Amino acid sequence: MKKLINDAESVVADALAGMAAAHPSLRVDVRNRIVLRASGPRPGKVAVVSGGGSGHEPLHAGYVGYGMLDAACPGEIFTSPVPDQMLEAGQRMHGGAGVLFVVKNYTGDVLNFEMAAEALAEEGIEVASVLVNDDVAVQDSVYTAGRRGTGATVLVEKITGALAETGAPLAEIALTGEEVNARSRSFGIALTPCVTPAAGEPTFELGPNEVELGIGIHGEPGRTRTALEPARELVRIAMDAINDDLPLSGDVLVMVNGMGGTPLIELYVVFAEVAAYLRRKGANVTRRLVGNYITSLDMQGFSVTVCRLDERLTLLWDAPVETPALRWGR
Amino acid sequence: MKKLINDAESVVADALAGMAAAHPSLRVDVRNRIVLRASGPRPGKVAVVSGGGSGHEPLHAGYVGYGMLDAACPGEIFTSPVPDQMLEAGQRMHGGAGVLFVVKNYTGDVLNFEMAAEALAEEGIEVASVLVNDDVAVQDSVYTAGRRGTGATVLVEKITGALAETGAPLAEIALTGEEVNARSRSFGIALTPCVTPAAGEPTFELGPNEVELGIGIHGEPGRTRTALEPARELVRIAMDAINDDLPLSGDVLVMVNGMGGTPLIELYVVFAEVAAYLRRKGANVTRRLVGNYITSLDMQGFSVTVCRLDERLTLLWDAPVETPALRWGR
Repeated sequence: MKKLINDAESVVADALAGMAAAHPSLRVDVRNRIVLRASGPRPGKVAVVSGGGSGHEPLHAGYVGYGMLDAACPGEIFTSPVPDQMLEAGQRMHGGAGVLFVVKNYTGDVLNFEMAAEALAEEGIEVASVLVNDDVAVQDSVYTAGRRGTGATVLVEKITGALAETGAPLAEIALTGEEVNARSRSFGIALTPCVTPAAGEPTFELGPNEVELGIGIHGEPGRTRTALEPARELVRIAMDAINDDLPLSGDVLVMVNGMGGTPLIELYVVFAEVAAYLRRKGANVTRRLVGNYITSLDMQGFSVTVCRLDERLTLLWDAPVETPALRWGR
Repeated sequence: MKKLINDAESVVADALAGMAAAHPSLRVDVRNRIVLRASGPRPGKVAVVSGGGSGHEPLHAGYVGYGMLDAACPGEIFTSPVPDQMLEAGQRMHGGAGVLFVVKNYTGDVLNFEMAAEALAEEGIEVASVLVNDDVAVQDSVYTAGRRGTGATVLVEKITGALAETGAPLAEIALTGEEVNARSRSFGIALTPCVTPAAGEPTFELGPNEVELGIGIHGEPGRTRTALEPARELVRIAMDAINDDLPLSGDVLVMVNGMGGTPLIELYVVFAEVAAYLRRKGANVTRRLVGNYITSLDMQGFSVTVCRLDERLTLLWDAPVETPALRWGR
């Protein structure tokens, strides 16, 4: 295992120090593991807060900024943050209009965000949560009861963040987040496992010509293994799984996401196949993302997320956003 | 070797089809291998054109758009594009004010851009070229006479592109591009080799605990090999090499670039060390980029590029840019 780190113990803290140095728009509390907008809370605006294990960068801290998150709470690698982080993030970014938690459906995250929500509510701060569970690959998994939360998290954070900037009330933002989740599906395929700094070994084994279908974002097992196929066939498998669950038609947003170690040129090859698949189904790709948005350290592979848009969600997607990892329109 | 491709022969064409599907702001001529702004040439504006081997994505096609390139010419993987591509890109984007070629110092690129420049000149189109040779690692290399052109290419493309939008004349833009190059230095370190789709094998061998210092962007040999050290020590080696060549002081732009297979969390660990190094030298980091900007397929590793800014270059850096890979301020 070769990694660009100082010490396996200090990776998260060292990376947060790097984020602080790289992004003056962020206030990074390295000790308490919270990344906040440097501009502080805005009175009357709902604070959108997310968090989860580290190793999925740029998720979540890379999405803190205007039009998206108010704060992110990074845990250790592939480990949920603790309730104190979420509590403090909510306290510090609360602008009087309540706090929305965006939570990926992983058991630790769910429990810890629930505890933080209760603690905030005890302080008289209104809290709502959106649970993201878009991954069609498996019903239950090593880390979850129910479907895992994966790529749609980026979409939920962007769209709830845009709505929060308009001054919309907490209940409406939470409903919209749930709607984005309900309209989104994801499926991922791994060509290689990933290696965590602490373990120093691959999270699982894959043969030299094998791929794992329906992978999560931690190297947990997927649906099945198969021989490596051309990109066109891998995309067909992923898209069929999505289309079986949510028939694809109308206007759609597509995110082709790299797992961290995948060259961008390959993601474009995948995107071409996804676009061709959707054309054949009669769906209309109106918005797209291609790149590393929710990763698994150095894993090679990709995930596809599709969201069925309507006019309102398209407008919220297009609204200005200014974060380290997603930026447009301002 | 596991890759998300359909066929090693069709990777570049398939990826260009993906770019066409993903970015409506681009006109992608897959057959002739040219990526152009869909908006076409702007009368009175110098056309900024670059190109080079594929495998370095998002360079160059990901930088086509407002405020940066007018066109990019992708070659096969790690292979120079041919003069016909550059000639046609120049013809199609020429707005009456001439064409600037941004050329990385690799022998094939240099020769082919020269031939294209001659052909354009014969048609009465004014041409100038900026040669980028910022890599301090080696004086000559497998692929070059003189220093290699690496990370500073991104900076030269951004800043000449911004100046071209103002309607500045060709000679001034070319001089500014040369100034950016003269003020910039880079150094790269590889933890792993990369694997080209055609070869299917690593471009070189590295032991399980070895790193290559002073790597180029094709897996060509660097200065020397050493045992893997903590990020702090690797950064010290890279920054000392840069600082020995161009003493670092004043306002600087820093790019910490991933080679394609490096997790973003590690790039932030590196950035923290680079920022600390520059603080100790008394330099003032005023602008930063952290991410994958000029890559070597799936190689793990990083490069650092430092550019000594002045007020004018800072303003040009900050000017609005709207490309698939670099976007702000509009």
